[in-house]
Amino acid sequence: MNKPSGRKINIGICGLGTVGGGTLALLNENEAEITQRVGASLCVSHIASRSLNQDEVIGIPQSGKDPFAVVNDPNVEILIETMGGYEPAFDVIKNALLNGKHVVTANKALIAERGNELFEIAESEGAVLAFESSVAGGIPIIKALREGLAANKINWLAGIINGTGNFIMTEMASKQCRFEEVLNQAQALGYAEADPTFDIEGIDAAHKLTILSSIAFGIPLRFDGTYTEGISTITPEDIRYSDELGYCIKHLGIARRSKKGIEMRVHPTLIPRSRLLANVDGVGNAVLVHGNSVGATLYSGPGAGAEATASAVVADLIDLARHSIAGADKPVYPPLGYKQMLDDIEIVDIEDIEAEYYLRIPAMDRVGVMANISSILQSYGISIEAVIQKEAISKIVPIIILTHRAEERKLNLAIKAIESLDDVAEKINRIRVEPFDETEL
Amino acid sequence: MNKPSGRKINIGICGLGTVGGGTLALLNENEAEITQRVGASLCVSHIASRSLNQDEVIGIPQSGKDPFAVVNDPNVEILIETMGGYEPAFDVIKNALLNGKHVVTANKALIAERGNELFEIAESEGAVLAFESSVAGGIPIIKALREGLAANKINWLAGIINGTGNFIMTEMASKQCRFEEVLNQAQALGYAEADPTFDIEGIDAAHKLTILSSIAFGIPLRFDGTYTEGISTITPEDIRYSDELGYCIKHLGIARRSKKGIEMRVHPTLIPRSRLLANVDGVGNAVLVHGNSVGATLYSGPGAGAEATASAVVADLIDLARHSIAGADKPVYPPLGYKQMLDDIEIVDIEDIEAEYYLRIPAMDRVGVMANISSILQSYGISIEAVIQKEAISKIVPIIILTHRAEERKLNLAIKAIESLDDVAEKINRIRVEPFDETEL
Repeated sequence: MNKPSGRKINIGICGLGTVGGGTLALLNENEAEITQRVGASLCVSHIASRSLNQDEVIGIPQSGKDPFAVVNDPNVEILIETMGGYEPAFDVIKNALLNGKHVVTANKALIAERGNELFEIAESEGAVLAFESSVAGGIPIIKALREGLAANKINWLAGIINGTGNFIMTEMASKQCRFEEVLNQAQALGYAEADPTFDIEGIDAAHKLTILSSIAFGIPLRFDGTYTEGISTITPEDIRYSDELGYCIKHLGIARRSKKGIEMRVHPTLIPRSRLLANVDGVGNAVLVHGNSVGATLYSGPGAGAEATASAVVADLIDLARHSIAGADKPVYPPLGYKQMLDDIEIVDIEDIEAEYYLRIPAMDRVGVMANISSILQSYGISIEAVIQKEAISKIVPIIILTHRAEERKLNLAIKAIESLDDVAEKINRIRVEPFDETEL
Repeated sequence: MNKPSGRKINIGICGLGTVGGGTLALLNENEAEITQRVGASLCVSHIASRSLNQDEVIGIPQSGKDPFAVVNDPNVEILIETMGGYEPAFDVIKNALLNGKHVVTANKALIAERGNELFEIAESEGAVLAFESSVAGGIPIIKALREGLAANKINWLAGIINGTGNFIMTEMASKQCRFEEVLNQAQALGYAEADPTFDIEGIDAAHKLTILSSIAFGIPLRFDGTYTEGISTITPEDIRYSDELGYCIKHLGIARRSKKGIEMRVHPTLIPRSRLLANVDGVGNAVLVHGNSVGATLYSGPGAGAEATASAVVADLIDLARHSIAGADKPVYPPLGYKQMLDDIEIVDIEDIEAEYYLRIPAMDRVGVMANISSILQSYGISIEAVIQKEAISKIVPIIILTHRAEERKLNLAIKAIESLDDVAEKINRIRVEPFDETEL
């Protein structure tokens, strides 16, 4: 086999926080292995960090606080953006691309919200903007979708793509605790931020789903088209009733190609307990993808953490180095996997989707209430798959209904009508159900 | 984004059986999607098939029975070898590479046993021999190991990589049937061959494990170094006792980097029931990989079938097309993922491994038998983790022992000594145990 070419590729890193620091550490720790794989050395030659720690940059030729010094360093071939946030990260990436450098980023929010603009600049400069680490941490899901499954028309994908949310759902289920209790515990353990909104309201998952959807379906990034619902309304009772029905509740990002267009939605979801995805617990991530040729494949692993994320950042570096050594003078992969994007595809409004539904109806303990509810559902053409009616604890008796497939707009009207009954005491909790019938996994 | 370059890449296919036929069908069915992704057309221009069906080759410029006509067709840029077997597949691949063509093959036996030779030819010709479809069907596990996890030093991997074997183990567990019964049923369903030796004795899995190990550890293909044990000695009792202990039995391929070298072994294995891998049932495949940076990641999906395998064959085609369009004049990826292979690494003899063990000892129902067994284990330094002793059914009472970690050589000596006791009626059934403590999956 070949001996290493002796080539050296100079890397710049902007941002030495969790991911940037992890990347630097990984490049050091696995230097020998990486050189054997690539046949060239990946050398960090320039670092910029707001709070520069001199111990971290021993042996690095240049370091400082200004990321634009890295952007404008003619020796840097590949720039790693691990500052996070929107500004100055956007300008750092933009100007690095304009300077003809390849860029590797872990910045999911920036890619999801401003990626279209950045990819256009990258393309016009013949540079690559790589972002494997932006979704599902160390799981190579971008590569799987863009390359490993490239022969398929993707029908749908569904993923647990926020570790914090999955940790909370898992703890609520295993300990029968309320959402607030588990959130406090997650914050104490460092699994949740002081302001947990991005995680628990599904915004972080929506960023990742936006990216996955573009690669799956060949559409421009449409963060604005992603429907988002958080997990704070889920109760231990919902988890228990779901369990009785053979389901568990996961906070999923789901993207689907339907007759109406592309659905992109993040929300709590009942999935059959027997599915592999239902068994992905704690801070783990997993993405289930259904292609028209391969069927369903699942990718699971750690979705966050310095080392796992660094694994994906460095995988992007290695890819870029390999392409360059092979003599590729143009980017090998279109950034979102398609040379021809589908610009005119419809994003389906959440009211236009069809799903099965779980309803928890806090009804008064009176004769005829079930008959009234059934007749309303029937009037909207919604049929019932299963019912659990429990003995009354107080004056309120929870009625749990699983519906067959229905249009969400009709379901919403039915919920409104049921809530207006005198027999119904409080708001109905409605959770979407995904049976994943098309897959054996 | 770019419009397609209008480029056309001519493909030849040798062998139109399950996989070759599936590949042709997939290239037709997803033609539009593939062209949008690649920016070029993948056109099948020449087909060779032993039993040529004229309906299948409508619209193909050339077809015939001689694979070497495809090998020598100057218009064919990429040749797909889906004939299977060793000859003439070896000569077809070899001569295609010598003619400067890239080759895509699904032939795991050939790659595992003669791949070293073929990769050397490919390298000296600057051609690529791609083989994603040779392991785990439609799951892009080769790509994950070679590229997605390239930043990692791989510590170990463990996979369910034979669908037939996993179907049999799953059915035995769910229906408490004996091996022979389930095998007959699998043959009737077409899940097992008339001669099932390759599947049930683990030879097919050993071929795949050989390939995965090379990519994981950078060693040449060493099929001869892979230890293989089949599933025909597993009984419904073993499955039941394992279940009582919290385990299920899977036929795994395991490769591990230990202090002594590289372990490669295929054998039935007890794994904790709570692991994701334990929940991969039926004909499904899954590979769990542990890297020093990312930790554990799992890849699961269909491991066989025309469509799933074709998905991987065409993914290889798309990669080759993308590399070529980007101007790469050398192969982008070293075939086994390493530019510098480790030629001198030790393959660990099975007697030198360390594992935990499950022992089912058919003992006579006499006083003192357990004391005798314990004292023999102790004399070999083997400590006991758990014991189940059942009431006697006949004169024989099964004693089930889980040991702590021990060297297999010592365990074998202990088994021999225990079997020579007057108190022990029949041979002991010994199954290795993998707790996968290092992973949360």
